[in-house]
Amino acid sequence: MSKKVYLVGAGPGDIELLTLKGMKLLNRADVVLYDALVNPEIFQFCKDDVIKVNVGKRKDHHLKKQEEINELIVEYAQKHETVVRLKGGTPFVFGRGYEEVRFIVKAGFEPVVVSGVSSTTSVLESFMIPSIDREFSDAYRTITGHDMKSFSEIVTQYHSRENLVIMMGIHNLKQIVFTLLEKGYPSTLPIAILSKGTCKDAQQVVSTLGEIEQKDSLFFEQMKQLTPAIIFVGQTLNATQELIAK
Amino acid sequence: MSKKVYLVGAGPGDIELLTLKGMKLLNRADVVLYDALVNPEIFQFCKDDVIKVNVGKRKDHHLKKQEEINELIVEYAQKHETVVRLKGGTPFVFGRGYEEVRFIVKAGFEPVVVSGVSSTTSVLESFMIPSIDREFSDAYRTITGHDMKSFSEIVTQYHSRENLVIMMGIHNLKQIVFTLLEKGYPSTLPIAILSKGTCKDAQQVVSTLGEIEQKDSLFFEQMKQLTPAIIFVGQTLNATQELIAK
Repeated sequence: MSKKVYLVGAGPGDIELLTLKGMKLLNRADVVLYDALVNPEIFQFCKDDVIKVNVGKRKDHHLKKQEEINELIVEYAQKHETVVRLKGGTPFVFGRGYEEVRFIVKAGFEPVVVSGVSSTTSVLESFMIPSIDREFSDAYRTITGHDMKSFSEIVTQYHSRENLVIMMGIHNLKQIVFTLLEKGYPSTLPIAILSKGTCKDAQQVVSTLGEIEQKDSLFFEQMKQLTPAIIFVGQTLNATQELIAK
Repeated sequence: MSKKVYLVGAGPGDIELLTLKGMKLLNRADVVLYDALVNPEIFQFCKDDVIKVNVGKRKDHHLKKQEEINELIVEYAQKHETVVRLKGGTPFVFGRGYEEVRFIVKAGFEPVVVSGVSSTTSVLESFMIPSIDREFSDAYRTITGHDMKSFSEIVTQYHSRENLVIMMGIHNLKQIVFTLLEKGYPSTLPIAILSKGTCKDAQQVVSTLGEIEQKDSLFFEQMKQLTPAIIFVGQTLNATQELIAK
């Protein structure tokens, strides 16, 4: 039987949103390779002599390329008993987790995925925004805002009962809003920029597509400072506003 | 300050996918109102004298109507110190959680949402299916398969780099497949029916839209037995098959 390598979801930021299974693996990990989005407080669950390897990637500032990360995981797995690849959110949602799985399998190890709380749902919840609410929505679309060509091809048409959850899109906020308006999304449609959700310094900006369209370049520069941020677009935001108004 | 009422996500089934925060709340809960989808093993985290209230709903067999659930939550909150509303997956994804929040606020209590691991992502992970994989996908759409009118209006067009995650749709499997083919989804496109993901009796059926289209009514009756099940449609399934083939 081949040695296991664990891909563990760290959750969205609040370390108490780690799963019990994730915590137990961190308890016995000899090596933890972790992302930039992982809250370092999470290492309190590790042994004192755990080897921490920061393989964080951030836009314009890649500490490690994906290929290097793949190779590092395998190198550590060859030398140590329990190797945990700790990923922000959950392993297979925008984390290139599957690329790591392929590499782990190719190297003769057995990948084990331990799901985490995905930011795509929990960050919204932390701001009391329902992904789904019977009054307003039946569906939500989770999409990267990093690649505008793909975004523009996939988001072809507005439907009032579907929300958009746009990941890694804050740098393209202006283009995203212009694209949506062009596709027929109404200018009165609510949009929220949700920054650092579930963390102490979380903050949100709530507006409408039409209002954002009118903003100057200073605004968009300021928004870029809010990274990591999720852009949420949809009628469901009215549910939250209605609650706050009470 | 008003008394808090906790909406806690239990996760997809495997009780070790409960969060630390969720576990701590179960530890001190006086009352737990829980869904049919919650694994009863989770009560090992509760006090011996916890009051367990089964408010489970299942198709054609509603133990409680949503209105009754709302009222029960508030009744228990009026009489007991720590009341937990424990929901399968995470509170705001297809759980009518927000309706409960509205009711809790209206009754003068403070709702606190504790995110869980959503089935929409973790069930796929438990079968080694990536929601997102750079080689195959940039987006996924999470949608209810319960209401075919809404489904048909929202899913208008195929894009090869977007996967579909269809919840509560197993009873409509035939209509779903026919609708997708009608919308231009290719008959060779892979589809997986993922039953009881993360639990011991989990199972999957992998096929293509074209193959499912040819099935007889016995097949669809058998599929209904797999509830709860997620229907996953998309090219990303090729990634998983490619891995298994190795």
